[in-house]
Amino acid sequence: MKFDILRDRFLNGLNDVMKAVNTKTTIPILTGIKIDVTNEGINLTGSDADITIQTFIPVEENGEQIINISETGSIVLQARMFNEIVRKLPTNEVEIEVTNGFATNIRSGKSEFHLIGSDASEYPLLPELSADRQFSIPADLLKSIIRETVFAVATSESRPVLTGVNWKVEADELICIATDSHRLARRKVKLENLPTDITSVVIPGKSLNELFKILDDSTNPVQIVLTNQQVLFKTDDVLFFSRLLEGNYPDTSRLIPEDYKTNVTINGKSLLQAIDRASLLAREDRNNVVRFETLQSNTVEISSNSPEIGKVEEQIQVETLDGEALKISFSAKYMMEALKAIDGQDVIIQFTGAMRPFIIRSVADDAILQLILPVRTY
Amino acid sequence: MKFDILRDRFLNGLNDVMKAVNTKTTIPILTGIKIDVTNEGINLTGSDADITIQTFIPVEENGEQIINISETGSIVLQARMFNEIVRKLPTNEVEIEVTNGFATNIRSGKSEFHLIGSDASEYPLLPELSADRQFSIPADLLKSIIRETVFAVATSESRPVLTGVNWKVEADELICIATDSHRLARRKVKLENLPTDITSVVIPGKSLNELFKILDDSTNPVQIVLTNQQVLFKTDDVLFFSRLLEGNYPDTSRLIPEDYKTNVTINGKSLLQAIDRASLLAREDRNNVVRFETLQSNTVEISSNSPEIGKVEEQIQVETLDGEALKISFSAKYMMEALKAIDGQDVIIQFTGAMRPFIIRSVADDAILQLILPVRTY
Repeated sequence: MKFDILRDRFLNGLNDVMKAVNTKTTIPILTGIKIDVTNEGINLTGSDADITIQTFIPVEENGEQIINISETGSIVLQARMFNEIVRKLPTNEVEIEVTNGFATNIRSGKSEFHLIGSDASEYPLLPELSADRQFSIPADLLKSIIRETVFAVATSESRPVLTGVNWKVEADELICIATDSHRLARRKVKLENLPTDITSVVIPGKSLNELFKILDDSTNPVQIVLTNQQVLFKTDDVLFFSRLLEGNYPDTSRLIPEDYKTNVTINGKSLLQAIDRASLLAREDRNNVVRFETLQSNTVEISSNSPEIGKVEEQIQVETLDGEALKISFSAKYMMEALKAIDGQDVIIQFTGAMRPFIIRSVADDAILQLILPVRTY
Repeated sequence: MKFDILRDRFLNGLNDVMKAVNTKTTIPILTGIKIDVTNEGINLTGSDADITIQTFIPVEENGEQIINISETGSIVLQARMFNEIVRKLPTNEVEIEVTNGFATNIRSGKSEFHLIGSDASEYPLLPELSADRQFSIPADLLKSIIRETVFAVATSESRPVLTGVNWKVEADELICIATDSHRLARRKVKLENLPTDITSVVIPGKSLNELFKILDDSTNPVQIVLTNQQVLFKTDDVLFFSRLLEGNYPDTSRLIPEDYKTNVTINGKSLLQAIDRASLLAREDRNNVVRFETLQSNTVEISSNSPEIGKVEEQIQVETLDGEALKISFSAKYMMEALKAIDGQDVIIQFTGAMRPFIIRSVADDAILQLILPVRTY
């Protein structure tokens, strides 16, 4: 194996696959990056067993020669070390050559590194996913869907299936749901060519967070292939594989109330900032709980009280306020995350009494629903 | 105590004094910031017992009214909490009022906080330093002096006096020395009005690092007052007090060799980058040691060898190379920090054999000297 490559383009590819590499893995070969050199270009692969990222660098790109291949072959090189070496090389031309066994020379300018690589045939193979059942989502929409749901997954492993986001297909809609059993985030989106055989999977929250970092904000389609064990997200540059979580995702539809006793329309950003301020005192105490109380003449009050430190009160003018008077307490963290997911628009908050879950929706759009369970404080 | 103040100017002052506050202090009152309101303006004080920072906000500044004072007085408020509250207030107008006892109201827009403060009379008093023996250094020069020396202080407490920088007065020169007994950094600077009574103090490295963050890059003079226990740095806005370290600083002058057997002139930046690359392999192994070897025809080689991972070699063209041939090993970290202190200019490196300390100086300027002890590897 021997090739010359432009360092900056090589680094771009390495940075993508590095996102899958976890140096704390218990599988030694996965601390490495696999480099496969063919006559068409170079495939780079990184994996932590749950997530696998592969990227292809072609010999020529946009009319520019990126790689000059002298001999094809494969090698696995220690990921973090190799990435740092390439980043710090003195010139933009890099020559990489595997000599006897797995000994690898990296040359650039007057600098020469000799690394001891590993056998590429020991690296796990990628799952084979049949590409005849795929659908696509524009990259920017996929990022929104992730951002609006993934924060609500459970962080504790006590019910592993809740650490993922449930993607369900119902007719022409994809429904994405995350819950940690104290709050729930749901996003619906109409799509074409949705699969009809596999209609419910659970994607690990960690995988979606890593995928989010790789996607750009373009409208370029991301092709998605679902199987029973794996999901594949394909962009022009990158194949992103994630294993799926096993187990049945709970039916959450009964959690969402059907009729409401108090309805408030309010500017999401003002409410977010007021809760952020109130939570400064709440954070030191009792699980970060703030109080929300309806007052007369389209006003609500946000307050928090921490006997050791002090208290805070703030009144906010709302757009509309209908139904029964209400005093309710909830987690400031959950409320702030829900409001951030809806992204600063006017929101409708609908309550069914101080001890029942309440929901938050955008005034403009029914696609996002956030649900929060209140906290008993009396 | 009652006053109105513009939030943004108030925050600037709070940010300065916050740099001295350490929330892990064992002295409860020092988790707070002291606010003293007089008819002229507001003094803010923060301290961790070693460092004390005080700043003054005048009633009027550049023709703009900053503060409106209704009642003078003093209070201590929990530093981190108070700073966060002020930062997140909804408007630029803040009213602060101490009502009965130490209860403090903070109002801005429709937001109202009630904090439980502490008695300002329990806050430690500032040391009284007589201002008749002061000298001054331009802020940017003072920052350079700190940057060129403080990195070399000892981090271990086994000889506490070495965790500080020794400032010595000799005739019209201030000589600043730091050493951890493996390397040494020395900076000399000619100044006027240097004190003649107190001629040697040791300033804690931590204090100098904090002072560095507060100073700007202007040529504005920083007034310095030395006493036996304390040093005070005064800028227009800020009083920065630091306690001094006790104990005699060792005489380091004998460490510096007087004649040399090998002299190398080399571009500091090229050498720094080559050592940075070589240290990628060295870092995993044996204390981060790299090898330096003189070759024929104005060339030196930097190399490193780690049996488990691989090796690296790089040749560098030097400007001049005189004297005996040399193979020497040293800490990549110490060499890189020394070269960074000299800041990328051409440097002279002078050796007295593989087992003796060597020195690094700028070609342009004799003011900075760096000394490093080699490592025995044979």
